[in-house]
Amino acid sequence: MAKTKAPRRPRAETPKGFRDYFGAEVTQRKAMLDRIAEVYHRYGFDPLETSAVETVEALGKFLPDVDRPNEGVFAWEEEGDWLALRYDLTAPLARVAAQYRNDLPSPYRRYAMGPVWRNEKPGPGRFRQFYQCDADTVGAASVVADAEICAMLADCLEAVGIARGDYVVRVNNRKVLNGVMEAAGVLDPADPERFAAERGIVLRAIDKLDRLGEGGVRALLGAGRKDESGDFTKGAGLGDAQADIVLAFTDARCETGTETAQVLRGLVGDSKIGLEGVDELEEIAALLDAQGYGPDRIIIDPSVVRGLGYYTGPVYEAELTFEILDEKGRKRQFGSVAGGGRYDDLVKRFTGQAVPATGVSIGVDRLLAALVAKGHAQQAAQGPVVVTVMDRERMADYQAMVADLRRAGIRAEVYLGNPKNFGNQLKYADKRGAPVAIIQGGDEAARDVVQVKDLVLGAKIAEDATLEEWKARPAQQEVARADLVATVRKILDADT
Amino acid sequence: MAKTKAPRRPRAETPKGFRDYFGAEVTQRKAMLDRIAEVYHRYGFDPLETSAVETVEALGKFLPDVDRPNEGVFAWEEEGDWLALRYDLTAPLARVAAQYRNDLPSPYRRYAMGPVWRNEKPGPGRFRQFYQCDADTVGAASVVADAEICAMLADCLEAVGIARGDYVVRVNNRKVLNGVMEAAGVLDPADPERFAAERGIVLRAIDKLDRLGEGGVRALLGAGRKDESGDFTKGAGLGDAQADIVLAFTDARCETGTETAQVLRGLVGDSKIGLEGVDELEEIAALLDAQGYGPDRIIIDPSVVRGLGYYTGPVYEAELTFEILDEKGRKRQFGSVAGGGRYDDLVKRFTGQAVPATGVSIGVDRLLAALVAKGHAQQAAQGPVVVTVMDRERMADYQAMVADLRRAGIRAEVYLGNPKNFGNQLKYADKRGAPVAIIQGGDEAARDVVQVKDLVLGAKIAEDATLEEWKARPAQQEVARADLVATVRKILDADT
Repeated sequence: MAKTKAPRRPRAETPKGFRDYFGAEVTQRKAMLDRIAEVYHRYGFDPLETSAVETVEALGKFLPDVDRPNEGVFAWEEEGDWLALRYDLTAPLARVAAQYRNDLPSPYRRYAMGPVWRNEKPGPGRFRQFYQCDADTVGAASVVADAEICAMLADCLEAVGIARGDYVVRVNNRKVLNGVMEAAGVLDPADPERFAAERGIVLRAIDKLDRLGEGGVRALLGAGRKDESGDFTKGAGLGDAQADIVLAFTDARCETGTETAQVLRGLVGDSKIGLEGVDELEEIAALLDAQGYGPDRIIIDPSVVRGLGYYTGPVYEAELTFEILDEKGRKRQFGSVAGGGRYDDLVKRFTGQAVPATGVSIGVDRLLAALVAKGHAQQAAQGPVVVTVMDRERMADYQAMVADLRRAGIRAEVYLGNPKNFGNQLKYADKRGAPVAIIQGGDEAARDVVQVKDLVLGAKIAEDATLEEWKARPAQQEVARADLVATVRKILDADT
Repeated sequence: MAKTKAPRRPRAETPKGFRDYFGAEVTQRKAMLDRIAEVYHRYGFDPLETSAVETVEALGKFLPDVDRPNEGVFAWEEEGDWLALRYDLTAPLARVAAQYRNDLPSPYRRYAMGPVWRNEKPGPGRFRQFYQCDADTVGAASVVADAEICAMLADCLEAVGIARGDYVVRVNNRKVLNGVMEAAGVLDPADPERFAAERGIVLRAIDKLDRLGEGGVRALLGAGRKDESGDFTKGAGLGDAQADIVLAFTDARCETGTETAQVLRGLVGDSKIGLEGVDELEEIAALLDAQGYGPDRIIIDPSVVRGLGYYTGPVYEAELTFEILDEKGRKRQFGSVAGGGRYDDLVKRFTGQAVPATGVSIGVDRLLAALVAKGHAQQAAQGPVVVTVMDRERMADYQAMVADLRRAGIRAEVYLGNPKNFGNQLKYADKRGAPVAIIQGGDEAARDVVQVKDLVLGAKIAEDATLEEWKARPAQQEVARADLVATVRKILDADT
């Protein structure tokens, strides 16, 4: 006879590439985002929360990183419509700006915070759902809007606890880059599509300057480069004179933004777009100077490229400059935690009318990791005062104790597991990070007193401690039941 | 020749059943959730944030409302796995409790706040993405955990601004209900599956008591009921004596929980499960009494059913008792804003071991709507001080003004649109709800002064006001540039 097969139990697992966040992981992120939201608010930005789901049509094909064409979205068909989870917060903003264009103030400054989803191969530290925290200005053509966002980004970093000197906001301009491309002969204003492949190689080469150094970048600008493994990367095919122009561009950074702009003006020659870009950088530098954001916070840096294809003007990124140890114990700079720029064509997709826009996205997980590394993340929440249960029949008394504590604003709970094994209650209090435990057996109840145990002072609880041993510790005191709240308050105040 | 067809533009639309939240809609909800989180925290609950995506296998078939079998999830296939958006926060908790059972404290008190998704037909006010805000205790078999959550629910409502007397938390127990079913002859402990259909009809009938009254419910308990439209609903087929028991049960509520429990004890006869349920209700009532949660806040109410099939013990819901006007202008009670209960079998799906659990879910949108109706929602954020642009060349001066204001903690922005039409700047300030506008033309700049315009005092700005007319209004003053911040501060303080 066939044996009846028990139905297989479902696996208790997060889907591949997704993760859960517990306790302090949630509250630290929240505290950080709250501080950023305060800065955004102070700059006049209003919150916007769009739904996680968009039509695939509205999301479009603006997947953010042109270098990774396999990157995708999570999408499904629903009664003939294709729906998808948003992959960033910019595409939904473009949709909103088009949908509500008659109702929104113009310019529209908005901020948004929330998860986004990427259907890409998960890797170590790379998840398929993560937070973004964006601020964008839609409808402002002037680079005043870009300068404002750069200043706001610096303020955000300081607001969450990154000290001045530990970060820098770098600003560049795609137009200058295009001017240099023109001067180097890989951009023809009369035929913008021509040399597109070469320009892609040039952009990626500049972006690798940190890693490959000038020699490596020069090889990529020219015939190509063989890496350590022997793999060959085809170059842009530029002659030496052309490559010189590009390299001079990446090296154009001077002490002040105004000086840098002067050098750049020399490099773009008579390129119209290039000169326009230099003018814009000069204006940004002047505006930031006027507000007191000097080169200790924000610099004009022509080596900034930013991957996204859709940027059309100023681009900016925030980098943390302090060193941390990588997984192999080597020192390295923490690196980029935010970036953005001007994208003037996203809303046009919907309406046909160009709408100027600029904005920044803060990498929430990376910035939080930096705060944790620097010890600046919000402390984990203090564990609750744990009222132990000595006598199951007197649960109402224990509940009255926690009610008193909570009314005084003190985090408190009664042990709700099986109270029989007192050691388990102590282990529980330990696991919860409880600063104080309360004990009231029949004897104490008869005398209307409680034992108040300072667990922070009392250090680690031995796993096998008996109730008697534990009571004998010095950090324990017997007080009148009426003095419970005051006594606990005193211990908590002393601990902090 | 065929005409080249321009590609169709994407529609700028939210997908059907989804919506966007702007400004105050976002901040009011956040303020409310922050206050609830404080209460949850004070009770010792820790935050948990799971991802929006789960495997369909882990989510299981516990779709919450058995009355609507067509309700579904948003799901898609991903490399052989079926993934889906979570439809509530309880199913992910069950998965987490199983997955991390060796690491989590036991009992595990956790709270969770975030969006959930339902693939159901959208309707007026019914969206396919909405917020939930849950607190659950996993691993506590005792009804002390249920009593605690009821008290916490009352505290949450008061913390967000619902006055005592404007809400009530009602508690019942599925076991008592089962005892009554036994006494009424529609539950056979020896064959629990028998009469399942009849019990479903009885439960739904009780749930309609408010709407149909005793007569209507009695008809549904018996042969059936014809509604106003002539449609016939088949009844449970109970005889009069059986129906009397059920109706007596729904009518058992007395002044105090202890009295109610006594009446119920008489009704469940010798049903073992029923007596167990009465004992539990008595214990809950005693615990709540001891903490001072009297019938003005929490009552034992046998008419509470709660739809979910998975509840196994105490069930509870919070109702707002004040009246509002419905869409037709008729007065009605606001109704339920939160509910929950004990569900001891959800974790068992994964591990095979029963894990007792109980928890509550607050309907975030409904509670927020109640706060708005009562005028208790957080006020919309004040608009920014708007610095107008009289002279494009002096943008750096205007930026320096907002920088000064922000450093003083004042929300401020420069007008970033085209400054040519001053009327547009005023309209913008109006749309932004700006309390103050700042003007500095060339004349004022030369004398190092600014015009400070109190817009709250100055009331509505006429759309066609000229700059001269506007300057002439009494609520405007000229002050030294150095006094800008102090002057604005004074106006803002006077406004609030």
